[in-house]
Amino acid sequence: MKQRNCIVAQSGGPTVAINASLAGVISGVAESSVYHTVYGSLNGILGILNDELINLTELSKEQPDFLECLAKTPAMFLGSCRHKLPHYLDDDSSYVFLFQQFETYEIDAFFYIGGNDSMDTVLKLSEYGKKIGSPIRIIGIPKTVDNDLCMTDHTPGFGSAAKYLAASLLEIAHDTFIYAVKSVTIVEIMGRDAGWLTAAAALARNEYSDAPHLIYLPEVPFDPEDFLLDVKRLLFERNNIVIAVSEGLRDVSGNYISASEQSLDTFGHKQLSGVGKTLEFFVKEKLGVKVRSVEINVLQRCAAHLASATDLQEAAILGKKAVALSEEGVTASMVTINRISNTPYQVEYGYAEITHIANEAKSVPEEWISPNGNDVEQPLIDYLTPLIQGESHPTYKNGLPVYAGISHLLKYQ
Amino acid sequence: MKQRNCIVAQSGGPTVAINASLAGVISGVAESSVYHTVYGSLNGILGILNDELINLTELSKEQPDFLECLAKTPAMFLGSCRHKLPHYLDDDSSYVFLFQQFETYEIDAFFYIGGNDSMDTVLKLSEYGKKIGSPIRIIGIPKTVDNDLCMTDHTPGFGSAAKYLAASLLEIAHDTFIYAVKSVTIVEIMGRDAGWLTAAAALARNEYSDAPHLIYLPEVPFDPEDFLLDVKRLLFERNNIVIAVSEGLRDVSGNYISASEQSLDTFGHKQLSGVGKTLEFFVKEKLGVKVRSVEINVLQRCAAHLASATDLQEAAILGKKAVALSEEGVTASMVTINRISNTPYQVEYGYAEITHIANEAKSVPEEWISPNGNDVEQPLIDYLTPLIQGESHPTYKNGLPVYAGISHLLKYQ
Repeated sequence: MKQRNCIVAQSGGPTVAINASLAGVISGVAESSVYHTVYGSLNGILGILNDELINLTELSKEQPDFLECLAKTPAMFLGSCRHKLPHYLDDDSSYVFLFQQFETYEIDAFFYIGGNDSMDTVLKLSEYGKKIGSPIRIIGIPKTVDNDLCMTDHTPGFGSAAKYLAASLLEIAHDTFIYAVKSVTIVEIMGRDAGWLTAAAALARNEYSDAPHLIYLPEVPFDPEDFLLDVKRLLFERNNIVIAVSEGLRDVSGNYISASEQSLDTFGHKQLSGVGKTLEFFVKEKLGVKVRSVEINVLQRCAAHLASATDLQEAAILGKKAVALSEEGVTASMVTINRISNTPYQVEYGYAEITHIANEAKSVPEEWISPNGNDVEQPLIDYLTPLIQGESHPTYKNGLPVYAGISHLLKYQ
Repeated sequence: MKQRNCIVAQSGGPTVAINASLAGVISGVAESSVYHTVYGSLNGILGILNDELINLTELSKEQPDFLECLAKTPAMFLGSCRHKLPHYLDDDSSYVFLFQQFETYEIDAFFYIGGNDSMDTVLKLSEYGKKIGSPIRIIGIPKTVDNDLCMTDHTPGFGSAAKYLAASLLEIAHDTFIYAVKSVTIVEIMGRDAGWLTAAAALARNEYSDAPHLIYLPEVPFDPEDFLLDVKRLLFERNNIVIAVSEGLRDVSGNYISASEQSLDTFGHKQLSGVGKTLEFFVKEKLGVKVRSVEINVLQRCAAHLASATDLQEAAILGKKAVALSEEGVTASMVTINRISNTPYQVEYGYAEITHIANEAKSVPEEWISPNGNDVEQPLIDYLTPLIQGESHPTYKNGLPVYAGISHLLKYQ
């Protein structure tokens, strides 16, 4: 029976949940009546192009605790890439070779765990496969700390990033409230175009701390003068202000609030950094108070020691779901999470056509942002709260969390 | 019997363990046959000067779980200050008032939990007390993430910062190793003059990752050209390099490797930031590879969710020890940790005269730094390893750690 195989790969930027989805795929294949072996493609789609595939089915059989540890390990066990396929009408050489590889390895399905750009690859492979009449199922499994993929209630990786961020914001609040002098702390949070992760800073608020006192999302044009008025007003009421800002803040003309060079990455995105520092110097100059900026940086996407148990669980289920759907013949799709209710938190798992997802992005709805653009509304907090519930409790050894070692087959370490 | 009282205050920069010492003092007083009440002075010594004292003995009786939660709460429950007392020979007005306050509140002992600058206050109060023949015991309780206090094997707060840092470094290693392109990641770590915390980055190394590949401490003059050679050499061997640098790196002439303004704080220290960014642009310009700098910033001193259980336990014991020593008549001293052995890790608790501690600083010994100044030696790793053992496991509620609310009496929040 089990004569066919499949390939899984990971792509884009790291999250804490992307290996949980990988573990889900490996488990799904182990339980499958169709698939014999799942191969892991090293460095995303490049692994197939470079013929760098590892046998994950064997690997997981050799090491009994492997899957459990893998599911709690940050970033990509298989490595990643930022490789954009040309459209096959422009150059089909990669496609020809990829589908040859699928034949060589007796592949029935390819699973790509990734974000927006990876879903572009899923779309292109699906279109080419359809054109040549290939039976290979191509299925995307979402992940991104940005939470900006369409057709899914949220994306794996986001809940853990939100949890780490909210906990860090709470801890920064404790850190900043200790001095009896006027101070402003600006926390810069990831999210190029969507403010979901920045909004999660609001979860830090509790019965004794209302930090962050101001939240600025990239969905709203940023007005430095309005910002200054907000800060001034709050400094009348209290000594210490904590402000959450998205890395992607832009002014009304669309220019980034950023002091850094704006180089373009492979996908034509601007490489951002610096809004925190920019606003730090701005407030210091204008108001003369103590100002500190904190860029959470990559920690928000790799701090697996504080992962959301809900997030990791959902990520693993989506991996399994992708395997099951492929067996049913689903292709050209991405597996999705559909929320049934907030209280109690209930979801169901499904899929959506990749044409509705690739190259689209989901912003925070206007009605979930406060009218004056400096905070979020309760429905957004209600949406976010279930996603950070539960702790994943990694195993600790010698004082540090135990993660699955980055594959020794990765030559580039 | 229990007719006399004492005062405790917290000062300087936050750590994760400073409230554990506070909880230790409160517990010590509860078990004391001498002290009736321990008052908490808000914002360090300023609370006594401004007559802002809260009754911690009552507070801890009112809330049964208070002490347990307090001991796991980051930063200063009582607030902090950066107030430098003048020498009493220059101006004794503060001293006269402070000792009047001690009389008013029937105080027998004053405990000051803090770092180098707070020990300066302990010294000055002790000297003035001796001059006027006061029987008040003045005892310092160490805390600093910098680990640079003399006469104690290590300082509470350091072990937790080291644990968080090492875990974060390991996670950053996972984050950075995923791409098959040459990259350099520079992690900037706190420690103005002492490299203890930067050295703790070495604890992130394990059987599959040798990141950080280079470690630069402020004890060694930093040579940008040597640094560039180190990076170049490593980029031949591997794709991804992680480098730990102290915020306090200086060149051979003593100038900070930093692009920022160098304003002076109350104590005459240079306010540092920017060595990471400075080196990021330097490597980018010279080698043309992908470079990222990550400033761990305040998170390394406030991330209580990943505190070292060893650290919190020792901090609490030192708080209790200070109370016990004051009952024995000890004054003008700081409680200390003396290491008996590394394996098994054993310590005993004692005290040392404050004159040997105040205004002194303990650097990393030269023999614990590699001869070429870009790494640490095994004895330093052996010294550090026991300090990060054990997890403190805070209680979680609604997805976030539960901390003791910053006192509602703090007006400045």
